[in-house]
Amino acid sequence: MKMARMLEEPGWLRHADKEAGYLVGVSGGADSMALLHFLMSAGFKRLVVCHLNHKSRGEESDRDADFVRGVAAGMGMPFELGNWSHAGGSSFENAAREARHRFFAECAQGHGVRKVLLGHHADDQAETVLWNLIRGSYGLSGMTESQRLTVSGVEMELIRPLLGARKSELRAWLEARGLPFREDRTNLEPVTVRNRLRLEAFPLLDEIAGRDAAAAMARAASDGRELQEIKTWAVEHAAAVDPQGRLHVRRLMELPEPVRRACVFDFLRNAGIPDLDRAAVDRVLAMLEPGAPSKVMLAGGRVVRRKEARLRLD
Amino acid sequence: MKMARMLEEPGWLRHADKEAGYLVGVSGGADSMALLHFLMSAGFKRLVVCHLNHKSRGEESDRDADFVRGVAAGMGMPFELGNWSHAGGSSFENAAREARHRFFAECAQGHGVRKVLLGHHADDQAETVLWNLIRGSYGLSGMTESQRLTVSGVEMELIRPLLGARKSELRAWLEARGLPFREDRTNLEPVTVRNRLRLEAFPLLDEIAGRDAAAAMARAASDGRELQEIKTWAVEHAAAVDPQGRLHVRRLMELPEPVRRACVFDFLRNAGIPDLDRAAVDRVLAMLEPGAPSKVMLAGGRVVRRKEARLRLD
Repeated sequence: MKMARMLEEPGWLRHADKEAGYLVGVSGGADSMALLHFLMSAGFKRLVVCHLNHKSRGEESDRDADFVRGVAAGMGMPFELGNWSHAGGSSFENAAREARHRFFAECAQGHGVRKVLLGHHADDQAETVLWNLIRGSYGLSGMTESQRLTVSGVEMELIRPLLGARKSELRAWLEARGLPFREDRTNLEPVTVRNRLRLEAFPLLDEIAGRDAAAAMARAASDGRELQEIKTWAVEHAAAVDPQGRLHVRRLMELPEPVRRACVFDFLRNAGIPDLDRAAVDRVLAMLEPGAPSKVMLAGGRVVRRKEARLRLD
Repeated sequence: MKMARMLEEPGWLRHADKEAGYLVGVSGGADSMALLHFLMSAGFKRLVVCHLNHKSRGEESDRDADFVRGVAAGMGMPFELGNWSHAGGSSFENAAREARHRFFAECAQGHGVRKVLLGHHADDQAETVLWNLIRGSYGLSGMTESQRLTVSGVEMELIRPLLGARKSELRAWLEARGLPFREDRTNLEPVTVRNRLRLEAFPLLDEIAGRDAAAAMARAASDGRELQEIKTWAVEHAAAVDPQGRLHVRRLMELPEPVRRACVFDFLRNAGIPDLDRAAVDRVLAMLEPGAPSKVMLAGGRVVRRKEARLRLD
């Protein structure tokens, strides 16, 4: 009940085309099984069930794959199976995410479908917000309901319709209907950063604060998106770039410092400056002050020059 | 060394008038003692040492007061002592903060001084950011370096020059100079929310993430302030209020949703609508849609009316 309410709230589902084709990432766990059943009961017609066998849990992984294959068969949906195992190098979490993206890109091409539905929910979102905050990402950032991604030359849209639902609601929804799902016991092992945030940090924060910390952090992700959109609009309206694509010094100086900084950041990012960080932006901002150097070197051999009250990037 | 570097970085100190009078809140702990010594050595001339005895730790509290009185005498500075004990009601932390503010207001009037310097540092800031996030404050919010506050009719500016410095740096700075300070052992008791965040949550987050979570959260407060200033600028430039002080419906509809929301929020807040929350803003935003009601009641008996493509507040 509650889940249906959340899923029917404004957002992606309100405007979704139920006749269109979609890939659905299904691990077999509660999150993605709830997503799949919900899409079915909401009347989506052309779903392709995609499962990447991570091979990380031996026979258990194979049984997950068999289960999802069975579910797809039972629902009369096409099933795509990929196999992947971690070859080392980057962390398991990062490597697995990249492998899933490559797998989705293959399925997308095979089926002529570009939209990929994923079962990420509010608790995943809260973990992402907290993790990004600790990592020092700018502002407040979480996952977005819709994310464009190009992998192996395939442009896809990743869609997360369940970001507003709690994990406990998804499980309760499945259990109330007697719908089976697989338990990934590694989710209960406090080994990866995500698992430890979920299993150790959030329970402690809940207890200290006497409130639902994950709910607050998941909501904070919306604030973060909202502020990001306001910033984008502000940069556009600051109109600090002249028709020749140069930064207009006088115009920049009329802006409050944070808006000015955002304009310079945006200008450098659009020019494809690599390794763009606060220090690089600071060096360009310093060029606006009286008596400042009229030339600054940036990463990648790029140069910013001040001439005729404009900053030009060469 | 390191602390001096941080304190001399751009910010309040760069522009501070060292001849002006300031109150300094001094508990006797490392934070405020570092602040006091730093101000002395930076050449501030007219400091008033203000100590509020919280009476919460019996004889220990009285000894703190004696210590700070002695320090002030040794430095040849005026000393103001206030006494306060918690009478119940709101939480100790909130009641103590209010009592300090009232005490500062009295001292401010007595000395004809309006600026109050406080020893809050980066670790305090990190706790504030995390706590506000869990409490569900909008966006990312921490303490500001400068905060205007009116208490008992006295307008004051609270200034926190140490927000960029870590607690460990302040202690190390004092210890390297053999400068004494008082230990408040209740800071080591995991009882209040703040103490538990400091003593339990941050160490766990550091360990999980393998990084300095407090440093990242303290920096995030700057992002939050920056985004807030950009938002303020955006609302101003959206120019959604007409010369008669009404919201301009067509102008609002041209704005992206988050900017529109920020304009409506700002409009209602400036009109002094009590208990302004997201739901109230949503109800006013809904008036912009075709076929919506032309009248919405808000808290405090205030009414928003749509007429001639304007929203007016009565």
